[in-house]
Amino acid sequence: MASRPAIPKGTRDFSPEEISRRNYIFDTIKSVYRSYGFQPIETPSMEYLSTLMGKYGEEGDKLLFKILNSGDFLADAGPDVLTSHDAGHVAALLCEKGLRYDLTVPFARYVVQHRAELVFPFKRYQIQPVWRADRPQKGRYREFYQCDADVVGSDSLLYDAELVQMVDQVFRRLQISVTVKLNNRKILSGIAELLGQAEKVTDLTTAIDKLDKIGLENVNAELLERGFSAASVARLQPVLQLSGSTEEKLSAIAALFEGTSETGLKGVAEMREVLGYVTDMQVQTAVEFDLTLARGLNYYTGTIIEVKANDVKIGSICGGGRYDNLTGIFGMPGLSGVGISFGADRIYDVLLQTDGFPDSTTETTQVLFVNFGGDEMRAVLPLLSEVRRAGISAEIYPDPLKMKKQLAYADSRRIAFVAILGGDEMASGSITVKELATGQQTKVAQRDLVDFLLNR
Amino acid sequence: MASRPAIPKGTRDFSPEEISRRNYIFDTIKSVYRSYGFQPIETPSMEYLSTLMGKYGEEGDKLLFKILNSGDFLADAGPDVLTSHDAGHVAALLCEKGLRYDLTVPFARYVVQHRAELVFPFKRYQIQPVWRADRPQKGRYREFYQCDADVVGSDSLLYDAELVQMVDQVFRRLQISVTVKLNNRKILSGIAELLGQAEKVTDLTTAIDKLDKIGLENVNAELLERGFSAASVARLQPVLQLSGSTEEKLSAIAALFEGTSETGLKGVAEMREVLGYVTDMQVQTAVEFDLTLARGLNYYTGTIIEVKANDVKIGSICGGGRYDNLTGIFGMPGLSGVGISFGADRIYDVLLQTDGFPDSTTETTQVLFVNFGGDEMRAVLPLLSEVRRAGISAEIYPDPLKMKKQLAYADSRRIAFVAILGGDEMASGSITVKELATGQQTKVAQRDLVDFLLNR
Repeated sequence: MASRPAIPKGTRDFSPEEISRRNYIFDTIKSVYRSYGFQPIETPSMEYLSTLMGKYGEEGDKLLFKILNSGDFLADAGPDVLTSHDAGHVAALLCEKGLRYDLTVPFARYVVQHRAELVFPFKRYQIQPVWRADRPQKGRYREFYQCDADVVGSDSLLYDAELVQMVDQVFRRLQISVTVKLNNRKILSGIAELLGQAEKVTDLTTAIDKLDKIGLENVNAELLERGFSAASVARLQPVLQLSGSTEEKLSAIAALFEGTSETGLKGVAEMREVLGYVTDMQVQTAVEFDLTLARGLNYYTGTIIEVKANDVKIGSICGGGRYDNLTGIFGMPGLSGVGISFGADRIYDVLLQTDGFPDSTTETTQVLFVNFGGDEMRAVLPLLSEVRRAGISAEIYPDPLKMKKQLAYADSRRIAFVAILGGDEMASGSITVKELATGQQTKVAQRDLVDFLLNR
Repeated sequence: MASRPAIPKGTRDFSPEEISRRNYIFDTIKSVYRSYGFQPIETPSMEYLSTLMGKYGEEGDKLLFKILNSGDFLADAGPDVLTSHDAGHVAALLCEKGLRYDLTVPFARYVVQHRAELVFPFKRYQIQPVWRADRPQKGRYREFYQCDADVVGSDSLLYDAELVQMVDQVFRRLQISVTVKLNNRKILSGIAELLGQAEKVTDLTTAIDKLDKIGLENVNAELLERGFSAASVARLQPVLQLSGSTEEKLSAIAALFEGTSETGLKGVAEMREVLGYVTDMQVQTAVEFDLTLARGLNYYTGTIIEVKANDVKIGSICGGGRYDNLTGIFGMPGLSGVGISFGADRIYDVLLQTDGFPDSTTETTQVLFVNFGGDEMRAVLPLLSEVRRAGISAEIYPDPLKMKKQLAYADSRRIAFVAILGGDEMASGSITVKELATGQQTKVAQRDLVDFLLNR
């Protein structure tokens, strides 16, 4: 291969520095998940296409990466494969597996498959890559990590509030200022009922979800286009123009639901209960009720959560919600759950832009032992072993090159200390330690080296 | 979907317990890698097939998982795809990407692609899953983790010895008794030269690699079958029957090489140098010279390393070696390297069989707050927040069910403590903590709860 090697579009290599930074995000999220009693699971990268297909809408099916069957896949596919010009049909004949598209469907599959071993409510977290054959663009990748936590097997709204508390804790630890927006799918259904068009709740939410982006006038135009009557749109106006505090908004909308929508009233009651718990839990992040929030995902049935960074324009960096029937598609109905997902890539970009990564995230060697060759080198080896056994990351330069070259290596690797064991030091059982940042040199007894380094 | 969901053959779900155990292995390996100055990188799950094909032999090419091109893959493939009956040809038309088969080839690709940013010698470790369309069987999976460390850009045999030291440290920390076997590819080449059949070194090593398994007589038969003359096979007998200490064996074989194979002599010298360093480094594990060791991988050019567990029959659990030209296939010749790979799945099985996992590997909730509903429940919420902020993993039971049910949940989750805040406790500002293992109950002031738990 003569040409310079490359990696597929939309995928990435991660350097040591990028890994350390990403782990800083993962570790923060994990430690919060754990302190709430969530336990990790992992699922295979590939699932049967029968598990994945039809769960993400028509567009989602197209974005699944499909894996060619192994062995003699052509013969196994039958003669049809050579005559059909329908790509979807041919793909189904050639492929029975696909790469995971998200962590939610594999989790639902996991719960149903392992139900006998699980204790409910089952709280799991999962941090793994997912793959989507999306058009690659800035900030959108074909392989990226999701960081999900879900609890299934309980209707308790305490869990909805706990997810808000977890969001609060994660972003305070990362020192990212955020706003949490909450809504409830039942309030959205209530609004559709209020307009007398309960069956059009998806059209309604798709349109009003854009209020922030395209403005009231364009939303109204889109609603008319989507088949809402002019009377309905007129009736919607006081709802879309609600103002005041969260409690004022909830009271106003509850008054509208009174006598017209039981579902809407239930949504308001759930929202109040969740907000009450959030207060009791001493959440410090700003939490707002936003009735335009829909998140486009039809499987939410209760609370909807979305988090935005206050200081960086980047869209949602975390989101989630409650669903009543996620495992129903796999033959286990009636299991309610609620979950959240942190967008690690966007959080990474926020921290880059706000200079929010701690300085020490990149792990590197702490001490480089200079290599003088011969006896001096061999005298270094047991010392090096001792330093490493003490948990200090250390190296010896591999060849007895000029000191200058060895120091240049230490410098470019950002190694803090250089340890020098030459003829003088051998004779006196000592070793010289040089701190590269200050140039300060200290001669210590070889037996005191570990203590000396641990005290730095 | 009516049928119970399943996952593809040869793949696995990981439960919280399995993840904790696997992380115990990964964390041990990582901490050793880090203390030797290795830094983590990650590469994409998918690589171009042009990067992967032809690197693992014909059999390896067949075991690659290929990913169907996205979009209108049929039209893009051209008319040929509908008439060809050659699966390999059709696969090449339909697929441009495949899943990573190991971590070595992606690492070589990474080094060449990023050479301008790297500091050489470049020491990287990489712990990621790989995929092979192998026939699934006990202990062999289609998705499994590799844990590799390599250093490229140096010929120094200090690194070969350091890898042995790392093996020593990893397995002593895991408390697995192992034997390290060493060989040198140049010694194998020397033996082929000794027989006057230098060009047949691969046939030679493939045959003598089996000495342990099939015995001397069968090895001799196989050599004849592979085209070695009876004279050659006779000449080989003293080599195959070498005995004594490592130094005795090396001396004997050096005597045979004297005047017949420069390469063989160089191999003996390298082996002695590596063994000398291993002694200086105070390696405690048994290290043996084994001239039948070949590891089947043709890219090794110097030291070959293999590790076997002493107490469990499971084959090799770690292996590696030195290669002179791994990046040559990507247009960057002359870069020498040496690396090692730990087999996490087999190490897992060894630890299971020897009961070697520490008891505390499964992380679970430490305290469950009983839920009495109403005011008592709301009084628990700020306490729960405080406990979590202190880094203690804690939960509240989601609903005010009967105490018995809540305790059963704590029990099945193996939660150590239950915290009870009922009417009495509310009145006195206290909380009762019950240790489930002993049944012991202690009433403490609410403000002392965190301290009390931290002291347990």
